[in-house]
Amino acid sequence: MPPQYAPSLRSRLAPLLLFLQTGFIIIFAFYTEIERNGNADDFSKRYPDFQDVNVIVILGFGFLGTFLVRHGFSGSGFNLLVAAMATQWALILNGVESLYYRGRLRIDLKSLIVAEMCTASALISIGAVLGKTNPVHLILIGLLEVSGFILNKWLLQFLLNTHPLISIMMLHIFGSLFGLMLTGTLYRKGSEQRFEKEKFDTKMGLFSMLGTVVLWMFWPSFNSVLVDDRTPGRKLEAVCSTYLALAVSAVTAAAMSVLSNPKGKLHLIHLQSCILAGGVAVGVSMSAVRHPWEAMIIGFAAAIISSIGFQYLKIHMLLAFQCHDTCAILSSHALPGLLGWIAHLVLQIKDSDDHTVAIRFAVFHICSLLITIALSVTLGILTGLLIRLKFWRPPQYKNCFDDQAFWEFSHLAVRK
Amino acid sequence: MPPQYAPSLRSRLAPLLLFLQTGFIIIFAFYTEIERNGNADDFSKRYPDFQDVNVIVILGFGFLGTFLVRHGFSGSGFNLLVAAMATQWALILNGVESLYYRGRLRIDLKSLIVAEMCTASALISIGAVLGKTNPVHLILIGLLEVSGFILNKWLLQFLLNTHPLISIMMLHIFGSLFGLMLTGTLYRKGSEQRFEKEKFDTKMGLFSMLGTVVLWMFWPSFNSVLVDDRTPGRKLEAVCSTYLALAVSAVTAAAMSVLSNPKGKLHLIHLQSCILAGGVAVGVSMSAVRHPWEAMIIGFAAAIISSIGFQYLKIHMLLAFQCHDTCAILSSHALPGLLGWIAHLVLQIKDSDDHTVAIRFAVFHICSLLITIALSVTLGILTGLLIRLKFWRPPQYKNCFDDQAFWEFSHLAVRK
Amino acid sequence: MPPQYAPSLRSRLAPLLLFLQTGFIIIFAFYTEIERNGNADDFSKRYPDFQDVNVIVILGFGFLGTFLVRHGFSGSGFNLLVAAMATQWALILNGVESLYYRGRLRIDLKSLIVAEMCTASALISIGAVLGKTNPVHLILIGLLEVSGFILNKWLLQFLLNTHPLISIMMLHIFGSLFGLMLTGTLYRKGSEQRFEKEKFDTKMGLFSMLGTVVLWMFWPSFNSVLVDDRTPGRKLEAVCSTYLALAVSAVTAAAMSVLSNPKGKLHLIHLQSCILAGGVAVGVSMSAVRHPWEAMIIGFAAAIISSIGFQYLKIHMLLAFQCHDTCAILSSHALPGLLGWIAHLVLQIKDSDDHTVAIRFAVFHICSLLITIALSVTLGILTGLLIRLKFWRPPQYKNCFDDQAFWEFSHLAVRK
Repeated sequence: MPPQYAPSLRSRLAPLLLFLQTGFIIIFAFYTEIERNGNADDFSKRYPDFQDVNVIVILGFGFLGTFLVRHGFSGSGFNLLVAAMATQWALILNGVESLYYRGRLRIDLKSLIVAEMCTASALISIGAVLGKTNPVHLILIGLLEVSGFILNKWLLQFLLNTHPLISIMMLHIFGSLFGLMLTGTLYRKGSEQRFEKEKFDTKMGLFSMLGTVVLWMFWPSFNSVLVDDRTPGRKLEAVCSTYLALAVSAVTAAAMSVLSNPKGKLHLIHLQSCILAGGVAVGVSMSAVRHPWEAMIIGFAAAIISSIGFQYLKIHMLLAFQCHDTCAILSSHALPGLLGWIAHLVLQIKDSDDHTVAIRFAVFHICSLLITIALSVTLGILTGLLIRLKFWRPPQYKNCFDDQAFWEFSHLAVRK
Repeated sequence: MPPQYAPSLRSRLAPLLLFLQTGFIIIFAFYTEIERNGNADDFSKRYPDFQDVNVIVILGFGFLGTFLVRHGFSGSGFNLLVAAMATQWALILNGVESLYYRGRLRIDLKSLIVAEMCTASALISIGAVLGKTNPVHLILIGLLEVSGFILNKWLLQFLLNTHPLISIMMLHIFGSLFGLMLTGTLYRKGSEQRFEKEKFDTKMGLFSMLGTVVLWMFWPSFNSVLVDDRTPGRKLEAVCSTYLALAVSAVTAAAMSVLSNPKGKLHLIHLQSCILAGGVAVGVSMSAVRHPWEAMIIGFAAAIISSIGFQYLKIHMLLAFQCHDTCAILSSHALPGLLGWIAHLVLQIKDSDDHTVAIRFAVFHICSLLITIALSVTLGILTGLLIRLKFWRPPQYKNCFDDQAFWEFSHLAVRK
Repeated sequence: MPPQYAPSLRSRLAPLLLFLQTGFIIIFAFYTEIERNGNADDFSKRYPDFQDVNVIVILGFGFLGTFLVRHGFSGSGFNLLVAAMATQWALILNGVESLYYRGRLRIDLKSLIVAEMCTASALISIGAVLGKTNPVHLILIGLLEVSGFILNKWLLQFLLNTHPLISIMMLHIFGSLFGLMLTGTLYRKGSEQRFEKEKFDTKMGLFSMLGTVVLWMFWPSFNSVLVDDRTPGRKLEAVCSTYLALAVSAVTAAAMSVLSNPKGKLHLIHLQSCILAGGVAVGVSMSAVRHPWEAMIIGFAAAIISSIGFQYLKIHMLLAFQCHDTCAILSSHALPGLLGWIAHLVLQIKDSDDHTVAIRFAVFHICSLLITIALSVTLGILTGLLIRLKFWRPPQYKNCFDDQAFWEFSHLAVRK
């Protein structure tokens, strides 16, 4: 029976979207300009980078979220909607500084790329609450998460003088902790059990496999896109390291999946959650990785930790902390992200000759993690409290993970 | 019950394909040569552009047309077939001029890109008749539409001295009017009702979502590919404007879809038809768009007009003009295209200081639209009359929108 | 009824993967270094090439193998797994020479690209045994095939001084003969009949259509990636020739599919097997193709031969030689590859003015084919004998072509 009484979003979603979009257009009209002085070579070097990040954000994350059997339209459609909103907002927020100094908010390919990476952190957060929220929630979460993430970037830059490459790569840690706090705050009674419709089927598994392999293939671009290309070889290092880390973590994740299953079988969602772990961890530790084997060891460890997290921590989080994590972002982003942070610390200390420099680095590095954690946890909880308001018309328990709550299916083929 | 009596195409499709293909090979053998003097830098700049357009034409348009529940093989397969034929034909026709002057028809990446864009206009036309025609029809439509489109390009160039960038971007207007006239001419009794099999289901919806997001992601390439890269910043402008217009129209289309549904739900096909409207409109007005906010306003207006068209005009066209439009090309290409044309006019007049120049531009601009409309309407009707001949063995009413009319399913799994 | 007694791979797959992966990491740790002296321009030229080859290997081959109705997870998942292993192994083997001379095994984008192309030859072999083997088999086949292929490359280079471009393009011939010998050796009684689950359905057909069009779109990159870009125009020639050959073979394959079906219908799997034939044949003969029409004629002939092979030889191979070929690699790689080899010979002789040179070339060319055939056949049979051991726990007859033998489906939605 279709859930006939899912609350209508007509009076919530449409005004919110139109209001925000009009606001964004007005801001763009008064405060932005396109950077026209870049040379053509620069454009043709950077444009493929932009395309790759765009493919990751729209196609990769979008189809990764389609594995739930009755939630495919929402998984891919809301991802596009949130990405379109959050990227515009991130463009504005990232440009505030240049607005202050030059009176104009400059737009070029680099600012688009950075904005899309901020969006990626919001899309990670959304993975934790997918299926238990409506699109109004998702838009709000997306915009608030991006604001928080950019605030974090500013804090790290002004307090600790952290390089943007490092603070932006914190997106995995920030996004996933924000999402976990959010889903913890949104806990509803009865959800210690698995949700009724939280299943996958063979076809949906393949759609999310499509998203996964797209992420896997373009992840070297995601990790290398912000690396300074004036130092020869740095970009190449980033690409090769990421590729090798991804290869190792795909192999290791498969081994772990077979090991942790009593019948010795592979689990598709387990695999999808864990094969990217190496790429995530190497991304966070990118500035310190100098040799491919370091990346490979990081990839190996990340896949093991991520697999253990998926297999044992996910259910534990639900029962002990009432924290239901739809896309397993704890194991696919938080744990590998933290591992990458540790790897960065270890590698940097190992490579530095001077004790004072090493200690100074360690202090800064630890502070930057603490600030990120504090900010993401606080903002995640605050956002969760805002989202809990009945005003936003949350879906009922029986409408969770169901496209029919939000999508019209009038001309749908009936399978007889 | 499978439609057992769909007319066999063995004696029509195979000879047509082999005859045309042999002819094309002979023409290529005698009249073409590859442009060998381009430098390597040029190649590596242009090759990603070619790839992006190729992805739009083959993957984007191909999977966009897979939403009908029993018509996925035809949607993607015939698209590839028509694209492979039409691109070869467009390469030949586009080269006729250089054949005349230099005795040889030069092939390089730019000529491939232009040929693929001409093919795109044919694929738009085909969207209107998809499911009601057989592959023989589609091949003929593809070749005739491409011929008409290139004729239009010549006319605009010789009569009005229109820049190729502008005349090629007319592809949305030309292709959609051609297709609408064609489907009006092909009207068959009884089709005021929806066709029996004209439905979508959750999996097919996701396949067409894949096509849609591919188009959405690569549309900035499609709009910027012909922009002259010698003026610094013009390509960047085109990319940023298109991206922002697409983002705005995705958000606006979602708002309009919710608003126009009595239960406040989103409609997937509505969304897929309208989120590209901004990209289409900005493409047509590309040469006059100078600021991102102009593109955003165009994207906003395009999504609204496109949504209204999808919701109210599509059914009206069917009942009043007996014009059945399978992929809603009226709202996804014709209306945004016309809006883009108007935007171009308005922006160009606004930016020009001299009244005489502005009026001169307006006259030329209006003439170029009138020529395009006249040619596309006339050729669409003529093509429709040709296609109506029984000789081409049209599918019967009950075979419409059904892969089984054209595809062998002997080893198909039976769902028990 | 689910096949409950498929043998558990826990004690085979996991140790094998972990052992090999650890070994690879150790080798990388001691013997590799990243080539840091490349300039940035070189990087940004080559990176899109690497991405395209990666997309072909992971997304293209992966989704091409998803057409079997109950075998989609294995088709795409095992492809990723084998590719991740085989690429690492190929990187090591390809570097052995530089290890010998310089003491270090250098990694850069070119070595990654070559490694992925070696992997592609292994993935072609796997196509022949897909569904009848378990992942342990596939890993072993992948590594042994890559070793054999690289051995062949060395032999050709040292004995005949063959250019790597030519020996690597032999991958279609080597991979497919290896795979055919393998599947012949693995023959099991009763499989003269079609396997019970060897069917496709509409959705799986579209997933494999996705893989096919991805291969079709990126094949020009695959053929041109190793072409020397210092000679102006050579890369452009390679791209245009491949594109046109692919277009011709798509059209011709459709015509042949209609002709060979008594009801005049198209067959999706037939089409998917044959539309790439032109690209394969042109790839093998790339160094001799100078004009687009030569490529088009090769594409035309390749599609015809490939279609005939698919329609008549596939079943013949099964009945006469007990050689069951799941993905029809005989018709999609072996026959077009051999045709390309012949085309290379003919074109080279036609273009050479001097008889002595022509004869010398012919002798070398024939020798290189004979060496390749001898090596691939021998190693294919040896690998088959190794794989037949019961120790690897082969799937039983009733588990063939079934994901449930290897994948956990606990939370799968049950269709009521």
